[in-house]
Amino acid sequence: MPLNTPQILDTARQVLEVSATIAFALSGVLKAAHKQLDVVGVSVVAFMAAFGGGTLRDLLLDNRPFFWASSDHLVWAVMILCVLAIVFLRQKHFHITERAMLWPDMLGLGLFTAVGVDMATEVGMSPLISVLMGVVTGVFGGVLRDVLCGEIPQAFKDHQPYAVCAMVGGCVDLVLRQWLGASETTAMLACVAATAGLRAMAIWRKWRIPSWQVE
Amino acid sequence: MPLNTPQILDTARQVLEVSATIAFALSGVLKAAHKQLDVVGVSVVAFMAAFGGGTLRDLLLDNRPFFWASSDHLVWAVMILCVLAIVFLRQKHFHITERAMLWPDMLGLGLFTAVGVDMATEVGMSPLISVLMGVVTGVFGGVLRDVLCGEIPQAFKDHQPYAVCAMVGGCVDLVLRQWLGASETTAMLACVAATAGLRAMAIWRKWRIPSWQVE
Amino acid sequence: MPLNTPQILDTARQVLEVSATIAFALSGVLKAAHKQLDVVGVSVVAFMAAFGGGTLRDLLLDNRPFFWASSDHLVWAVMILCVLAIVFLRQKHFHITERAMLWPDMLGLGLFTAVGVDMATEVGMSPLISVLMGVVTGVFGGVLRDVLCGEIPQAFKDHQPYAVCAMVGGCVDLVLRQWLGASETTAMLACVAATAGLRAMAIWRKWRIPSWQVE
Repeated sequence: MPLNTPQILDTARQVLEVSATIAFALSGVLKAAHKQLDVVGVSVVAFMAAFGGGTLRDLLLDNRPFFWASSDHLVWAVMILCVLAIVFLRQKHFHITERAMLWPDMLGLGLFTAVGVDMATEVGMSPLISVLMGVVTGVFGGVLRDVLCGEIPQAFKDHQPYAVCAMVGGCVDLVLRQWLGASETTAMLACVAATAGLRAMAIWRKWRIPSWQVE
Repeated sequence: MPLNTPQILDTARQVLEVSATIAFALSGVLKAAHKQLDVVGVSVVAFMAAFGGGTLRDLLLDNRPFFWASSDHLVWAVMILCVLAIVFLRQKHFHITERAMLWPDMLGLGLFTAVGVDMATEVGMSPLISVLMGVVTGVFGGVLRDVLCGEIPQAFKDHQPYAVCAMVGGCVDLVLRQWLGASETTAMLACVAATAGLRAMAIWRKWRIPSWQVE
Repeated sequence: MPLNTPQILDTARQVLEVSATIAFALSGVLKAAHKQLDVVGVSVVAFMAAFGGGTLRDLLLDNRPFFWASSDHLVWAVMILCVLAIVFLRQKHFHITERAMLWPDMLGLGLFTAVGVDMATEVGMSPLISVLMGVVTGVFGGVLRDVLCGEIPQAFKDHQPYAVCAMVGGCVDLVLRQWLGASETTAMLACVAATAGLRAMAIWRKWRIPSWQVE
């Protein structure tokens, strides 16, 4: 029985999608709470962080219905997360550290990138567009989160490898899948590992992407 | 002759749509003028405030053509409003008070929410998604308006019930429609009344939604 | 052999599309570099400036696949431009002047407007919507670029004719095409000339659009 039957693949992709969504929603909650937004602001920013990247991907690939509309379990999950987060945030002794925001974000980046590359490949996009769709899925939730919080997106200006990790992860996925004949499951897992691993390395080793001075 | 014939419903929905659009366009004009934008800025912000929520709803529900494209009466109406507003704004003695912005906004919120819930229900969305589509229709015009004006959306940070009113109004609509067997017209009117009424109460009684301190 | 055969038209439109895309991508690169964004930020802002207006137009007209997805040559072109720009920007003696940003922007505005009007007319939009689609195509790349850079869009607040030039150019196109029986190629060229020419005049003669004081 081969591992890459459509059903197992679908399940694997669903598990990735749910985990990534929760991870990103959490990063949205933490960001919005830091910016002193109110309950509504925290919830909307969480929703945008969680669903923004995937919705933009579905929009650009013309995938309908949107991944959150066909079944609303994900939407319920994020709503419950928001309620829980708001309850916990009201307890004074709940500290949010910069570091606490890094982990869910790193995992979500890898998971979303893998799902994005997979969906774009499936509808026949070229390798370049497929990798970019992975990056869009992984990065644009965070971009929308930051724009709604009135900031220049962190991914654009902190000189840390972030979208770059997603891009490398997406390339790993495509190379495995198209040239090395790996199963889709293997390619996706490798993409998650490469993206999240690179991101972890980048934070740990304080890697920086090139910068310049403009006079 | 029952009141909820498709034709009357369509007319009722159209009237709601036009009124809400004008109300929101006006809130966009006032906001943009406050931010000292130029004629183009005022017009674009008015268009985004007026059509942003409904366009996002149509996009998320995959309703085509967009509500403003099938017939362009609404677009002409907003254009004429912009020209009139610009003429009036140039007269020095025209004062824009914070209070003057509240009324069209309140009405528009109720009207847009009702239309959004109605359209989502009609295309078979789940109750949760339907209520959220009502909130999106009601709130995202204002969110886009504020983002374009370079601000964190007012709906996210002023600790006043706004999206919450739309959410309650949407729930009232759904409960009436699905469990109490009310006609669509009744449900929509109740939604407008509940949303706008709650919003008016919230402003009058200075209601606040919960907040917290993050260390 | 008439000049306005479909094939020549398609080629003309493609050439316009490519030139406009490169011009806008460059304006995005320069803007993002001015804001001290990192390599990723510069690239994403360049992509948004280049593809934002056209993508929004395709979205609003429901044109699929998106103009950059059917063949990915444009995406490669912008990627290569970004790499080149980043290499040049790292050389300290490369000065970016405010003036240098004006020329690609002016050209791109005219080209994009012509393409937008043409596509909207082709799918049967009303004259008003067609002109607005031209303006959206021409202006919204720049608007997205500025929003992502954390600024109120320049097109909304600098009191210079910009969107207004696109609107006049779009009207010239429509009048030539629909009332004077000009070929599509002629109408599009006239639109580019009118829009870019007006914009150049506006900068040279320091034209201002009306403003007001709000107390």
